[in-house]
Amino acid sequence: MIRKLVLLRDGESEWNKMNLYTGWADSDLSEKGRKEAGLAGQTLMNEGYDFDICYTSYLKRAIHSLSITLDVMDRAWLPVIKSWMLNERHYGDLQGMNKSETAVKYGDYQVKIWRRFYDVKPPNLFYEDECEPVSYEHAGEQPYPIRQYESLKDIMKRVIPYYEENIKKDIAAGKRVIITAHSNTLRALVKHLDNLTDDEIVSVNIPNSVPLVYEFDDDMNVIKHYYLEDKKILRAKMEAVAKQGKKWP
Amino acid sequence: MIRKLVLLRDGESEWNKMNLYTGWADSDLSEKGRKEAGLAGQTLMNEGYDFDICYTSYLKRAIHSLSITLDVMDRAWLPVIKSWMLNERHYGDLQGMNKSETAVKYGDYQVKIWRRFYDVKPPNLFYEDECEPVSYEHAGEQPYPIRQYESLKDIMKRVIPYYEENIKKDIAAGKRVIITAHSNTLRALVKHLDNLTDDEIVSVNIPNSVPLVYEFDDDMNVIKHYYLEDKKILRAKMEAVAKQGKKWP
Repeated sequence: MIRKLVLLRDGESEWNKMNLYTGWADSDLSEKGRKEAGLAGQTLMNEGYDFDICYTSYLKRAIHSLSITLDVMDRAWLPVIKSWMLNERHYGDLQGMNKSETAVKYGDYQVKIWRRFYDVKPPNLFYEDECEPVSYEHAGEQPYPIRQYESLKDIMKRVIPYYEENIKKDIAAGKRVIITAHSNTLRALVKHLDNLTDDEIVSVNIPNSVPLVYEFDDDMNVIKHYYLEDKKILRAKMEAVAKQGKKWP
Repeated sequence: MIRKLVLLRDGESEWNKMNLYTGWADSDLSEKGRKEAGLAGQTLMNEGYDFDICYTSYLKRAIHSLSITLDVMDRAWLPVIKSWMLNERHYGDLQGMNKSETAVKYGDYQVKIWRRFYDVKPPNLFYEDECEPVSYEHAGEQPYPIRQYESLKDIMKRVIPYYEENIKKDIAAGKRVIITAHSNTLRALVKHLDNLTDDEIVSVNIPNSVPLVYEFDDDMNVIKHYYLEDKKILRAKMEAVAKQGKKWP
């Protein structure tokens, strides 16, 4: 029996559209983001995918990407488990800042280090204090920590235990699972699943709203992974992106 | 400590709009239904309500009513538990039939009996066979029975055990709970909570998208219940309904 896990990055958010660092800021999907999520649902349906359980974060751009995908698949009734442990990396003081302006101010290389390097935390631009503030907010029955200034290495400490203790046992039990989350949440998972080095993960980028399938054997070893792209949908996407004068990632 | 439970009937569906019996048919919200759900969210927010956990059915008009309500309250991240045991009453062969045409064909009184009487099942119009067919569909990890021809008495057998075994213990534990479901699911709950007789429940009608609050003491006895209607919103609703030349229920 081949076990499959589908990873789906959220669609474009309003802050993405404005080229701002988002992180834990709860920016909703843009109209383009909503369309992208709908296309992901169509692709999954066209390719014969179905699910038994869904996981997502506490951030509305992921929750809504998932609900739009499920609506297109006529699967609104599927169980959906939400956890802050699948939230995007907290981008510290970069949150709300413009990506281009940051690049001009701090240089392209510094921005690449902040965005992609494995164990570099986002900057603490406004305080001398180098400590990592952690505050708590009420969320359902449990308070959850607002971890500011997270590196990819930091989020591995929440994403991977959550995957190992919750999601993995569903897949092992034969359930068809989809995780709808964020660029860095999914990069953390990909690093773990493919056993990538700290250097290898630097160049991994996951496109918005293209289902990424992992196949496992009975012992939960990864057999292979691949993106699902319906050719018709891919062409529509490329045309949409071409119109924006922007290269598809 | 006063414990509160909020019951919320789904907004108008496309089939409601067309005046068709809906039951387990999975008709989505109409535009009016989406607006009604948004107004319910605004009312709850204006009145200072918040929730820890949400329950809904497997039917998209309830799931979407809840998600719109939560979006307006900025609570998309709350846990949502879905169960077919909160589905609307199965309307048997009435499903998909026009309510007015049915009244012309079978008479107003017969229709009232089918719609409101406690222990009358919907009609089996097309088969001589008087048995109650039960089929199963795959839904998540468990198959669930498609119970055709349900009376209100029949749905008490699924709604009340589900409430007693799942929802009640959340309320008793101090959680703030909302249930977004359907006319007859909520009538079943109201009959149970207010200990109404089979005759008393006949005249109980629950309007779409108006939050109905139950208060409980520490021993989970009902203290009182009341509808939440923000005056500003109520006026907007009445104006909207007036435009449609239809009396507000």
